[in-house]
Amino acid sequence: MAPQKLQVACAGLGRMGARHALNFLNRTPRAQLVAAFTPDPKEVQWAKTHLEPSGVTIYTDYDEMLRHSGLEAVVVATVTTVHAEEAIKAIEANLHVLCEKPLSTSVEISQSVLDAARRKPQLKVMCGFSRRFDASYRDAFNRMDSGSIGRPSVFRSQTCDKLDPSGFFVAYAEFSGGIFVDCNIHDIDLALWFFGQDSVVKSVAAVGICAVQPELRKHKDVDNGIGMVEFWGGKVAYFYSSRMMAAGQHDMTEIIGTEGKLSVNASPTGTLVEMHGSAGVQREIPADYYGRFEHAFVTEANEFTAACLDNTRLPFKLSGAVQAVKIGCALQESLNSGQKINFDEVGRRIESARL
Amino acid sequence: MAPQKLQVACAGLGRMGARHALNFLNRTPRAQLVAAFTPDPKEVQWAKTHLEPSGVTIYTDYDEMLRHSGLEAVVVATVTTVHAEEAIKAIEANLHVLCEKPLSTSVEISQSVLDAARRKPQLKVMCGFSRRFDASYRDAFNRMDSGSIGRPSVFRSQTCDKLDPSGFFVAYAEFSGGIFVDCNIHDIDLALWFFGQDSVVKSVAAVGICAVQPELRKHKDVDNGIGMVEFWGGKVAYFYSSRMMAAGQHDMTEIIGTEGKLSVNASPTGTLVEMHGSAGVQREIPADYYGRFEHAFVTEANEFTAACLDNTRLPFKLSGAVQAVKIGCALQESLNSGQKINFDEVGRRIESARL
Amino acid sequence: MAPQKLQVACAGLGRMGARHALNFLNRTPRAQLVAAFTPDPKEVQWAKTHLEPSGVTIYTDYDEMLRHSGLEAVVVATVTTVHAEEAIKAIEANLHVLCEKPLSTSVEISQSVLDAARRKPQLKVMCGFSRRFDASYRDAFNRMDSGSIGRPSVFRSQTCDKLDPSGFFVAYAEFSGGIFVDCNIHDIDLALWFFGQDSVVKSVAAVGICAVQPELRKHKDVDNGIGMVEFWGGKVAYFYSSRMMAAGQHDMTEIIGTEGKLSVNASPTGTLVEMHGSAGVQREIPADYYGRFEHAFVTEANEFTAACLDNTRLPFKLSGAVQAVKIGCALQESLNSGQKINFDEVGRRIESARL
Amino acid sequence: MAPQKLQVACAGLGRMGARHALNFLNRTPRAQLVAAFTPDPKEVQWAKTHLEPSGVTIYTDYDEMLRHSGLEAVVVATVTTVHAEEAIKAIEANLHVLCEKPLSTSVEISQSVLDAARRKPQLKVMCGFSRRFDASYRDAFNRMDSGSIGRPSVFRSQTCDKLDPSGFFVAYAEFSGGIFVDCNIHDIDLALWFFGQDSVVKSVAAVGICAVQPELRKHKDVDNGIGMVEFWGGKVAYFYSSRMMAAGQHDMTEIIGTEGKLSVNASPTGTLVEMHGSAGVQREIPADYYGRFEHAFVTEANEFTAACLDNTRLPFKLSGAVQAVKIGCALQESLNSGQKINFDEVGRRIESARL
Repeated sequence: MAPQKLQVACAGLGRMGARHALNFLNRTPRAQLVAAFTPDPKEVQWAKTHLEPSGVTIYTDYDEMLRHSGLEAVVVATVTTVHAEEAIKAIEANLHVLCEKPLSTSVEISQSVLDAARRKPQLKVMCGFSRRFDASYRDAFNRMDSGSIGRPSVFRSQTCDKLDPSGFFVAYAEFSGGIFVDCNIHDIDLALWFFGQDSVVKSVAAVGICAVQPELRKHKDVDNGIGMVEFWGGKVAYFYSSRMMAAGQHDMTEIIGTEGKLSVNASPTGTLVEMHGSAGVQREIPADYYGRFEHAFVTEANEFTAACLDNTRLPFKLSGAVQAVKIGCALQESLNSGQKINFDEVGRRIESARL
Repeated sequence: MAPQKLQVACAGLGRMGARHALNFLNRTPRAQLVAAFTPDPKEVQWAKTHLEPSGVTIYTDYDEMLRHSGLEAVVVATVTTVHAEEAIKAIEANLHVLCEKPLSTSVEISQSVLDAARRKPQLKVMCGFSRRFDASYRDAFNRMDSGSIGRPSVFRSQTCDKLDPSGFFVAYAEFSGGIFVDCNIHDIDLALWFFGQDSVVKSVAAVGICAVQPELRKHKDVDNGIGMVEFWGGKVAYFYSSRMMAAGQHDMTEIIGTEGKLSVNASPTGTLVEMHGSAGVQREIPADYYGRFEHAFVTEANEFTAACLDNTRLPFKLSGAVQAVKIGCALQESLNSGQKINFDEVGRRIESARL
Repeated sequence: MAPQKLQVACAGLGRMGARHALNFLNRTPRAQLVAAFTPDPKEVQWAKTHLEPSGVTIYTDYDEMLRHSGLEAVVVATVTTVHAEEAIKAIEANLHVLCEKPLSTSVEISQSVLDAARRKPQLKVMCGFSRRFDASYRDAFNRMDSGSIGRPSVFRSQTCDKLDPSGFFVAYAEFSGGIFVDCNIHDIDLALWFFGQDSVVKSVAAVGICAVQPELRKHKDVDNGIGMVEFWGGKVAYFYSSRMMAAGQHDMTEIIGTEGKLSVNASPTGTLVEMHGSAGVQREIPADYYGRFEHAFVTEANEFTAACLDNTRLPFKLSGAVQAVKIGCALQESLNSGQKINFDEVGRRIESARL
Repeated sequence: MAPQKLQVACAGLGRMGARHALNFLNRTPRAQLVAAFTPDPKEVQWAKTHLEPSGVTIYTDYDEMLRHSGLEAVVVATVTTVHAEEAIKAIEANLHVLCEKPLSTSVEISQSVLDAARRKPQLKVMCGFSRRFDASYRDAFNRMDSGSIGRPSVFRSQTCDKLDPSGFFVAYAEFSGGIFVDCNIHDIDLALWFFGQDSVVKSVAAVGICAVQPELRKHKDVDNGIGMVEFWGGKVAYFYSSRMMAAGQHDMTEIIGTEGKLSVNASPTGTLVEMHGSAGVQREIPADYYGRFEHAFVTEANEFTAACLDNTRLPFKLSGAVQAVKIGCALQESLNSGQKINFDEVGRRIESARL
């Protein structure tokens, strides 16, 4: 008899949701995608073609989907604004949850997901920080963890999207929480991973510009942001995010220790092909985030599935996802206020007046 | 109702066989691994743990496996010496076949597989040239094919294994056909792909040395081989193979045209991590062939499956696999005789006396 | 008759001074090194061996050297604390001046050099920002200048020295002006070059840590500093400097425009050699600043000489050197105060109270 | 009193000759260019502008130049056909000689230069194998020499010129000796350097094509050549040369030992700039040989000068230059005859009949 498979539903079938659905359907041997939810007629149509023939039930009502017989886990990949609500509902329905990042653009709402999860300690609730599952990042972490660079001290990380001239990012900015919450949330999460999950933020400061999309200002956002974050204990991180890369997605990270440095994707690459032509030597890089991290998403699906089935620990704690939102929001606030924001040694905000 | 899956059996559960079995079991959504064959008790044991619980029937008799109810396709991944015999038996049992490279170390026997396949044109019979499924090679081919380098003229390719001090390769050399048939067969196949499947060989010449394993000479083999191949029509290729790389597997290729050049893995990489330490900047590369081409094998399994289920064309012809063995064997002969070997414009060998 | 050569003296024969002296002696065909000054007996000894036999007169008194018969130009390469005084004296003696960076660690004193130079418009007075003469930086600038990346908007640059465990940098920090003035001054100058010499600073903020040399705190300095600089007109720059690189000197820069990006030394290299060994693939990078920029210093000497002899424009204005010190000092102040510092649209500092 | 400078004359002021003349004039502090010879009126004109004002006497008669008062050394940089004759005349006039490669396209004539030099052991006579003075090649050699790659066993090297559509190479091929003598002579010399100056050739075989310039066939030449060379003692080398690179000059080398590998310029680079644009990430590489090796030529001039003035050993023996021509000519012959050529253990050719 074949081993039992985790019965999974996917909420949201947009760009990332469809990928999650297909990954759980086709590339996660121990999982079975049994249900999918989307309120969007176009996505329903896509699901009827790509999911239904494989036995997936399509729902247009999230609550109804939660009641799908035998369901054990939900992937929340809807728009950010409903992440938290849907995650909490799933938790309350005693379902494991893999929730796309960020939990919410609000620290308080993010915290409410964590609170809900804490009330059901038997459930696996994970925020989908996909880079945690990337082979290169894991390789870097393991090398650092084995002491190869001494004491990690300076962290630099960037999330840089290819320019999308369609104006998509302007509309998107209304709900994204801003570039530091939407893009750099990954980099902040990585900093917490590499510096230690319980690192306490000491200060944040950010600046930014609208170089190609001045309309972003109406949503208090920018298309290029730079942020510095101090942590208590003599560690600093700095971040860059951009929406205007010409060549493609360039996410990179370096972690600098007292005895060495590790970089991930410092010299960005796509395939292993180089073209020599009259313009010199040229290589292409992935056009988007999924082009860079596709395999990480597959690993994420498989490891989440294994943790649910085997009741083993998830690779990282949900509390970090709240901490990441807190830092991202503070950077976004600093960008807009022009003020540096300080925190005491337990991470409580220090009001400027007190300085 | 879920779509029907291709019922697949895997013959051979050694290093590559086990990988094929797991790929068809776990990473080929449209296939179902239903049977596996191995005469080796240790491999049977492995199969009982890794395959049987998922519903795979284990056989120790190949012919019996072929009679597995509902079987549609066989992956032949046993030792090279029985590839041809097993492939032919499967073809005669009306089964699709994916046969590991080379079909045989003998041109005649390789031809007999082709002959058998031609008698059953409805079957899909493919030689497992895994690099054909690699994203980087496909990217390079497509760029060449679209004219970006003008007329392809010079081809260079190498297959270089990490040094294995265990002596494995010495024992292996007894049956491998020699370094040009075992290693460079990939490079030769790539040359035929990039220069055109019907390219006709004009001459071959090879030299080589036993730099680390002098015992190879007793099997008429070397641990470092260099070969040059002329094709009719003004094209040349040259190949290098080695069994003594210190850093890991370094397979690379470049195709030079009249207006540009494409290289694949010229600057070998593993993950995207670089380490900066007191010895400089360092990166690791894959330790073995599978580390470099894992995803290509998964694609191979999926595309072979799709071609069988949908009755579509395979991505390349079986006849090329015979041609590749012919060139590989000629290089190996030239290595040992010290003579260049010439062929006429239809590929028939010209005896030295006739020169 | 051979063309006349510029009669040059070199003040200071320490690490950089000796290099300047030899470059003017041996690698600057249109210049003749005729005099050198140093108060240090060990340096005098070195000069007797390396300079005197080639006809260079050695002085231990700077003023006396200025009166060397026929002298036309002085290279000021003494310790930073006397740069300005010696430069001004040379200017007042009607001599061209190439002064090592920074002019001074004080904005006011730097300005006094500029003022002196303005009183003698016929003289060539240049601050030795060596990267301005580097082939790679010039290549990058020319590409940007020709419009290849659209409107330059974000600038990132770092100056990272190899760890020197001798404690040299602690003693040095007493007079260096701090890491932002000593190291990042180069990066700030580059930002002014790429963004335009007359860019006006809008805000600066900096953080930093003492990761390996806590004693730096007594000189209000750090061994790793991060700074952000906003310019009026929608441009931002960020900088990193470090004294603890394990692998060697890694100075790098990238300039990001609305249509592309240029990077200089993103993937640091030394010679073109790569070593493949059991630890992977490895390359060394220059151990120090001169290893990276040796040829730039030679070009600097030759171009300064040509400008003096031919009375042509220097490649950049002296006023930028004052602006660079101003920004460097503000970053250093921000590092120590923990406050962001703001400037109005003509570059005048805005006191916090006014915010 | 300034130290005495080597009194140097330069014969030939074509492309390379002019560079040599300027290097000895401006970038070789211990040398003084006092004379130059060219029979070409255009080159005389150039010399009147660029050399005469610096005190260089221009000659249109080589013999007359040799009698220039006080002359100590001659750089022979005329066309290959007169290298040997001019070098021998200079030697007989008791002058040190730096002769451009190759000494001759004939082994016998090359040998006659060596014979002449042996009759004047007090003279420094060097063949200008410029790569011997390149920092990267020296770095690689030193690493190999210190044992870092075990026993060097396989050598690969290429000399690949940018496509010159003017047809220059066709006319040039009449006297160049062919691609293996003109281009790969550098690679052959490097093989002799890395494998040991006294390595004895065992066999050579070559193939080639005219991919872009079919007219080369009338001079028995090709635009893409591949050659294999066996050396006695278990070493092999293979070479590639091309006249049709699209991106620029790509000369590269790798030396593979039993415990590691060293590569020089495997991933070709020019400046340290990378451009990120809509076509991906791009870098330019040098357009020609001098762009890649300019600094090596300067080093060559300085080291040759030092050896003459100080009567120290040259960095390599002249006999190797004859050996390199011998191998290059044999490759060219093999290319045209289609035959492999064999040599006995003292390097004497074995006639085919004896095989």
